[in-house]
Amino acid sequence: MKYCSVCGNEVHVTIPQGDNRPRHVCVHCGTIHYHNPKVVAGCIAYWQDKVLMCRRAIEPRLGLWTVPAGFMENGETTYEGAMRETLEEANARVAVDNLYVTVNLPHINQVYMLFRGRLLDLEFSPGEESLDVALMTQEQIPWDSMAFPTVTEALQLYFADRERGSFPVRMLDIVREGGVPGRYVVRHIA
Amino acid sequence: MKYCSVCGNEVHVTIPQGDNRPRHVCVHCGTIHYHNPKVVAGCIAYWQDKVLMCRRAIEPRLGLWTVPAGFMENGETTYEGAMRETLEEANARVAVDNLYVTVNLPHINQVYMLFRGRLLDLEFSPGEESLDVALMTQEQIPWDSMAFPTVTEALQLYFADRERGSFPVRMLDIVREGGVPGRYVVRHIA
Repeated sequence: MKYCSVCGNEVHVTIPQGDNRPRHVCVHCGTIHYHNPKVVAGCIAYWQDKVLMCRRAIEPRLGLWTVPAGFMENGETTYEGAMRETLEEANARVAVDNLYVTVNLPHINQVYMLFRGRLLDLEFSPGEESLDVALMTQEQIPWDSMAFPTVTEALQLYFADRERGSFPVRMLDIVREGGVPGRYVVRHIA
Repeated sequence: MKYCSVCGNEVHVTIPQGDNRPRHVCVHCGTIHYHNPKVVAGCIAYWQDKVLMCRRAIEPRLGLWTVPAGFMENGETTYEGAMRETLEEANARVAVDNLYVTVNLPHINQVYMLFRGRLLDLEFSPGEESLDVALMTQEQIPWDSMAFPTVTEALQLYFADRERGSFPVRMLDIVREGGVPGRYVVRHIA
């Protein structure tokens, strides 16, 4: 951020009075511009022992596999965001069961909120951002071609919990180890 | 938003190619500016049968009661945000148990994530944004002087679940009824 979105003048980085961390503040109109983490809402959409996987048609991670998920939009709830992403990326309709995994990604200022959702029918197909969409058992999932560690970890928890027969609401931290891209530490918080 | 934060030129509202909703787009450099919901992280900080309440020293709702909560910051996890707010608003230290209530507030683009946290000691005191801080039983809470319906609903759930002896992870929607400030519909999602 270089310019004030309210008046168009320059911003500088300073700690405002009564605050305790640096913010972008307009030199002209004084507006303080806050930057906060974003919620990524998504869905583990299941049918019997299978989950709905999408192969990404866009960067980042083009060609790799994920579950339907994306940035939550203004004006919607978390589970509405999860349903919308499932519809957009896989043309699939789900009945959302419950929140299942929250993943904190503090190094990229994101919070994933993944819901379990029962597929209402099998009329799914690739949306604009997907090359391919498929229902897969645990064994069929291409674990070596996954787009994001968040999704890998969430699906591993899902299949283990399914085996156990209950789905407690879980929370993970995934942080970049030593700031090195591609190397992560996973902490199981709950 | 009137001006581009990247180049300082004007933005206009249009649906970008490949998107399906209006965004602020710079007429000069083409940057698409997304606006997404914010996470409010907070804590139901308890000690035996009491919870830690804060009387607000700032607007909105100056003079009314709430639990420690505030906008999650970049670079932190959800529960770190809850602990930080508890420290800032009540100078109180907690051991966070687990996520307890998520509240969707789509009309103001917020998602509350409230954790249960056990107070580690009784050395609390009002922070800069609080007029007063107190431990209160269910009967002592000033239910007619609460700052936010989110907090009222979460605390009512908390005391009912405490009575039952278990704390399932809950989700609520609170939406403004007919767009009228002060009138809300509460939906219990989980």
